[in-house]
Amino acid sequence: MSEITRVDGRTVDQLRPVTIERGWSAQAEGSALISFGGTKVLCTASFTNGVPRWLTGKGKGWVTAEYAMLPRATNSRNDRESVKGRIGGRTHEISRLIGRALRAVVDTKALGENTIVIDCDVLQADGGTRTAAITGAYVALADAIEWGRAKKFIAQKSTVLLDSVSAVSVGIIDGEPMLDLAYVEDVRAETDMNVVMTGRGLFVEVQGTAEGAPFDKRELDALLQLGADGCADLRDAQIAALAGGEDAAR
Amino acid sequence: MSEITRVDGRTVDQLRPVTIERGWSAQAEGSALISFGGTKVLCTASFTNGVPRWLTGKGKGWVTAEYAMLPRATNSRNDRESVKGRIGGRTHEISRLIGRALRAVVDTKALGENTIVIDCDVLQADGGTRTAAITGAYVALADAIEWGRAKKFIAQKSTVLLDSVSAVSVGIIDGEPMLDLAYVEDVRAETDMNVVMTGRGLFVEVQGTAEGAPFDKRELDALLQLGADGCADLRDAQIAALAGGEDAAR
Amino acid sequence: MSEITRVDGRTVDQLRPVTIERGWSAQAEGSALISFGGTKVLCTASFTNGVPRWLTGKGKGWVTAEYAMLPRATNSRNDRESVKGRIGGRTHEISRLIGRALRAVVDTKALGENTIVIDCDVLQADGGTRTAAITGAYVALADAIEWGRAKKFIAQKSTVLLDSVSAVSVGIIDGEPMLDLAYVEDVRAETDMNVVMTGRGLFVEVQGTAEGAPFDKRELDALLQLGADGCADLRDAQIAALAGGEDAAR
Amino acid sequence: MSEITRVDGRTVDQLRPVTIERGWSAQAEGSALISFGGTKVLCTASFTNGVPRWLTGKGKGWVTAEYAMLPRATNSRNDRESVKGRIGGRTHEISRLIGRALRAVVDTKALGENTIVIDCDVLQADGGTRTAAITGAYVALADAIEWGRAKKFIAQKSTVLLDSVSAVSVGIIDGEPMLDLAYVEDVRAETDMNVVMTGRGLFVEVQGTAEGAPFDKRELDALLQLGADGCADLRDAQIAALAGGEDAAR
Amino acid sequence: MSEITRVDGRTVDQLRPVTIERGWSAQAEGSALISFGGTKVLCTASFTNGVPRWLTGKGKGWVTAEYAMLPRATNSRNDRESVKGRIGGRTHEISRLIGRALRAVVDTKALGENTIVIDCDVLQADGGTRTAAITGAYVALADAIEWGRAKKFIAQKSTVLLDSVSAVSVGIIDGEPMLDLAYVEDVRAETDMNVVMTGRGLFVEVQGTAEGAPFDKRELDALLQLGADGCADLRDAQIAALAGGEDAAR
Amino acid sequence: MSEITRVDGRTVDQLRPVTIERGWSAQAEGSALISFGGTKVLCTASFTNGVPRWLTGKGKGWVTAEYAMLPRATNSRNDRESVKGRIGGRTHEISRLIGRALRAVVDTKALGENTIVIDCDVLQADGGTRTAAITGAYVALADAIEWGRAKKFIAQKSTVLLDSVSAVSVGIIDGEPMLDLAYVEDVRAETDMNVVMTGRGLFVEVQGTAEGAPFDKRELDALLQLGADGCADLRDAQIAALAGGEDAAR
Repeated sequence: MSEITRVDGRTVDQLRPVTIERGWSAQAEGSALISFGGTKVLCTASFTNGVPRWLTGKGKGWVTAEYAMLPRATNSRNDRESVKGRIGGRTHEISRLIGRALRAVVDTKALGENTIVIDCDVLQADGGTRTAAITGAYVALADAIEWGRAKKFIAQKSTVLLDSVSAVSVGIIDGEPMLDLAYVEDVRAETDMNVVMTGRGLFVEVQGTAEGAPFDKRELDALLQLGADGCADLRDAQIAALAGGEDAAR
Repeated sequence: MSEITRVDGRTVDQLRPVTIERGWSAQAEGSALISFGGTKVLCTASFTNGVPRWLTGKGKGWVTAEYAMLPRATNSRNDRESVKGRIGGRTHEISRLIGRALRAVVDTKALGENTIVIDCDVLQADGGTRTAAITGAYVALADAIEWGRAKKFIAQKSTVLLDSVSAVSVGIIDGEPMLDLAYVEDVRAETDMNVVMTGRGLFVEVQGTAEGAPFDKRELDALLQLGADGCADLRDAQIAALAGGEDAAR
Repeated sequence: MSEITRVDGRTVDQLRPVTIERGWSAQAEGSALISFGGTKVLCTASFTNGVPRWLTGKGKGWVTAEYAMLPRATNSRNDRESVKGRIGGRTHEISRLIGRALRAVVDTKALGENTIVIDCDVLQADGGTRTAAITGAYVALADAIEWGRAKKFIAQKSTVLLDSVSAVSVGIIDGEPMLDLAYVEDVRAETDMNVVMTGRGLFVEVQGTAEGAPFDKRELDALLQLGADGCADLRDAQIAALAGGEDAAR
Repeated sequence: MSEITRVDGRTVDQLRPVTIERGWSAQAEGSALISFGGTKVLCTASFTNGVPRWLTGKGKGWVTAEYAMLPRATNSRNDRESVKGRIGGRTHEISRLIGRALRAVVDTKALGENTIVIDCDVLQADGGTRTAAITGAYVALADAIEWGRAKKFIAQKSTVLLDSVSAVSVGIIDGEPMLDLAYVEDVRAETDMNVVMTGRGLFVEVQGTAEGAPFDKRELDALLQLGADGCADLRDAQIAALAGGEDAAR
Repeated sequence: MSEITRVDGRTVDQLRPVTIERGWSAQAEGSALISFGGTKVLCTASFTNGVPRWLTGKGKGWVTAEYAMLPRATNSRNDRESVKGRIGGRTHEISRLIGRALRAVVDTKALGENTIVIDCDVLQADGGTRTAAITGAYVALADAIEWGRAKKFIAQKSTVLLDSVSAVSVGIIDGEPMLDLAYVEDVRAETDMNVVMTGRGLFVEVQGTAEGAPFDKRELDALLQLGADGCADLRDAQIAALAGGEDAAR
Repeated sequence: MSEITRVDGRTVDQLRPVTIERGWSAQAEGSALISFGGTKVLCTASFTNGVPRWLTGKGKGWVTAEYAMLPRATNSRNDRESVKGRIGGRTHEISRLIGRALRAVVDTKALGENTIVIDCDVLQADGGTRTAAITGAYVALADAIEWGRAKKFIAQKSTVLLDSVSAVSVGIIDGEPMLDLAYVEDVRAETDMNVVMTGRGLFVEVQGTAEGAPFDKRELDALLQLGADGCADLRDAQIAALAGGEDAAR
């Protein structure tokens, strides 16, 4: 790794400070307020006994997610999507990504005919909101599953979660691969990639985009390695949060 | 006042614990995370130099507000208004109320051709969300005005805020007038009233509704008196928050 | 009361000429074309046997209202809400107010599992459209209930209407409290209040707003008294309309 | 013509009673409340100096129309299009028809860069609403043009209206061509046709539809003849309305 | 007929080259890619066993149609209706016209409780898109009915199609009635008419509009005669397409 | 590579038959009807001189794309997004992907202040619609740029296209990596990946998703290699299409 020092003093392979306030919401069946540096996302899990009509009677549960940003989460205010009357493409895309990432570690048969909706609302945005959302959503999901088990909606000994899941962004800036981009880095990145991995180190989703120059296989490999290391650190933060209460990675 | 003790141990004329985390947002020109017991509202103020087209050239500023609730702020999840594609009547009504309340204490000429939008997002709801929103929004507004003054968008010596403004709910439960209803109280109230007052004790808005039996003048007067006392306490909490940092009333 | 004479020659405590054309619509189960001076609102009541799904099987009925304005009811044309594709906040707010006002005098158990929708369409607007709408809607509602009784959807001897309901606007202009504001008065009012009362003189809804300077308790009391007197006159006009046919108050 | 007598006692070639209350609205630049029997349509004309952006600078004016129905204009209540959030196909189609019909008799150059919007709101519907709307809209349009002339927005001696325009429905019921169908007739008609004609007897629009069996040229000719006679009678009612005040044809 | 030669060399009573590629879609139950000169419309028929809720249990089927245009079917690009979030009046109007035209030749009792939706998507537009759509939709419909019969959803010997249906545009340009207008002709036409006829030569729909000067009965008759001849030629092209495979009229 | 034979007889590293009908549209500035086996996408490029307001005066052009599917492109009919009144998340996501892919090879400064919109409408869908859309869109884009150059909107000697771009899907089925999945394969894939590459073999976008079991680095590498080979073949098909006229790869 290079000796480059980043705007906020981090090394290229270092995460921003990560905190996970598990159980932030008094009302949701699972919740976590997660921060990756200045990015803060409130993740709440809503457990409902029963499934959408199209899934009824198949003996399977359903996990889905919705992502949104408060209008002043960002540096200048954005109009509300509720006021505009339609959800933007970016919002849709991220909601779908979070849902897929969570379903990748859920055994929907073991979940039984129950539905869990994870809401990820960005209270403050400073880059990496979708990866923070996935990482926090997993914690909220895990608690909601235990809630469902305690309420006997889920069988006592079933294994609903096959693995954990976390996510991080990586990118190439001035030719240098870097981990967990803050907003000022993200806007300068030539290539931007989101890596979603299980706790055991398998890929769930890899989304790499050349924002500037296209990239080659060697760069892709460097980004994937950085992402894998970052996801492992985040997995540890998730484990700590679920073991006790609040915790900070690194 | 009666000797009745409420569900949460309060007397009938007692506010829930109030906290105001001023400057919660790192990015907004003014902000406050306010809580009235279990009700938590994030208020952010966005300052823009310039006014909407319909107001251009009149030498006046504009202050407006938008209210919304996170889908799982409540006990069971509500669909997002952005997903439904339209804003509900209740949301519209409360946004309009907050905007009117704030404009009642603003000298828009002294504000100059500047716009301040206050976003009030309910992170957790336990009754009184609109009154908490007004009370917190005033703190965010005050800071945004000072930001505008520091940036020279507002004249140095002008008095933009003519007074402060706070709000509280009152209601009649089992024939007894009570202050600052929590959700379990609100759903049982025969009459529900929101009182919005200036720091000097004048009325800005009075909205009383018979949910059950209609009410008479004597009951109305009792509710107004409770509301006036509650608003005065909230004004003190606002002053404390603006003087230092975080503070709790009562 | 003061000796002030108003633009249209009224005293401060005088209603505009009120007419109620009961049964204007040949097709609705109840209807009234009401006018408060230049304000004309067509109120139609639609009776349906059965209730919305969320109320089924509870042995209760449902009364709701929708308010709207024709595009050229006002001095300059407004775009249709159907063309804009969304209902404005003001429309929502008034529809909800009318519905609450009517439900305050209805015993929904006595109504049985029946639904009555009252449509209040403003054909011409000159101030006080929401209060005229409530006053006319009550007449349409009363006739629709009798229609339902005649058709045996409602039990013969049940008392569905617990009281009557009427509404009027009051306001402070140049420091003077006045009754039933016409549009030219309304735009100048420092404080604007809508008072909704039952025939027996109890309050159903009180909505007072400082459009200019905040108001004190003494002013509030003066407005409430004017409103109570106005509502009593309107109640008499409703009784006359329901007794015979068309009638004019004052 | 046959000896058949219709449900309401008319002969097959007879219009229902037609009334035109010219100037019904106190605020619009032109208006007419027209009735064809139980069908009542309020037509208001809004005159604006200036034209839509796409027409600016071409020295031409613009005339357009919007048609809508109150929710309880019909025998059972229809949901409001504003509530549904979209305008139905039928509404769009009729609005476009009315606009085309009016533009067919307007010299847009003589109108100058002015816009006239005609709103046709059906207060009560009993068949033939679109033809009543066209016939009433012409009266409102004529008055709005004279208003514009009086205000000097239109040149004193220019001829803006090249002719008058009126419309009527015709149809075949039980093999018999009939004029001006009431609702009970309309639903039974095998063929339904709307005929729009100028005062001089030329066709502006002919829209014939086989609702049941397809029709032949002989039937088409009979319908066109009935329609031409009906339009001539309506033209006379328009002339009478514009000459004096209210008037009834036949 | 006059000796006039048209822009593309046709005589006034001549159709453009017509091709019908039957079975263009590998997936629909019936389909046809039809072209009238430069106008190309893809018509697909979707057969579903069962009917919409409002028709259930009446022993009748349902046939409906939707028309749309690709954004760059025309000379300059139009915004997508899906992006605008609403369907335009013209689209609605044409969809309704196609549906009525098809239903005019279908015995819905013989169809049984089955639904056929015909989608007519204009891939390239050069005038006459709605008439090409009707003509092609009939071919797709006929094949979908045979598909339903083969699948035993329709009784073996029932006659579902009572007749065939085709459509063509006619118009008056420089005083001359002409058949099947191309786009450059259509924009210059004083009168524009669409004629929809059955194979046996009866009228299903006649829609004539004066775009410029109103028209008289003699002109109307000339247009109807041209339309009838054009529809007969199109009927022959339909028969040829259904007999073999692809075919071109004229 | 394995000896496995696929449903349609292909080897695991074989594309389906690819055809590119360049210039399919008579009206667009560039167009291509591309097919990957049963998947057919019509790509049209619309060239406009000028840029959206937010880009004005920056000396740069803009390239964007919209993707959509005809309602009966698939095996069963989907409701139109225009009818539903909103665009689905999948549509938004693919439109954004196509736009990013094309912009990755465009020098927007060399393009000058011109806008090119590429519409990709799926006429028939059998897997790989987004990758076929990107591959065809490049051909339409290249022709639209030459059109702009011929019209002198683009400087004669500037290099607007820095490279070509093509895309293909790859996936793992029964543990076996395969190229260019047809629909029946796609629904069974454990991992699904879209690879977008430049003609020179650099990555523009890599989107890999575990639909079933998460995947490891070895599998990821195998998929990327298959994708790179497929993209190279598609690049050759693009070159052939742009050199002459229609052409088929493989």
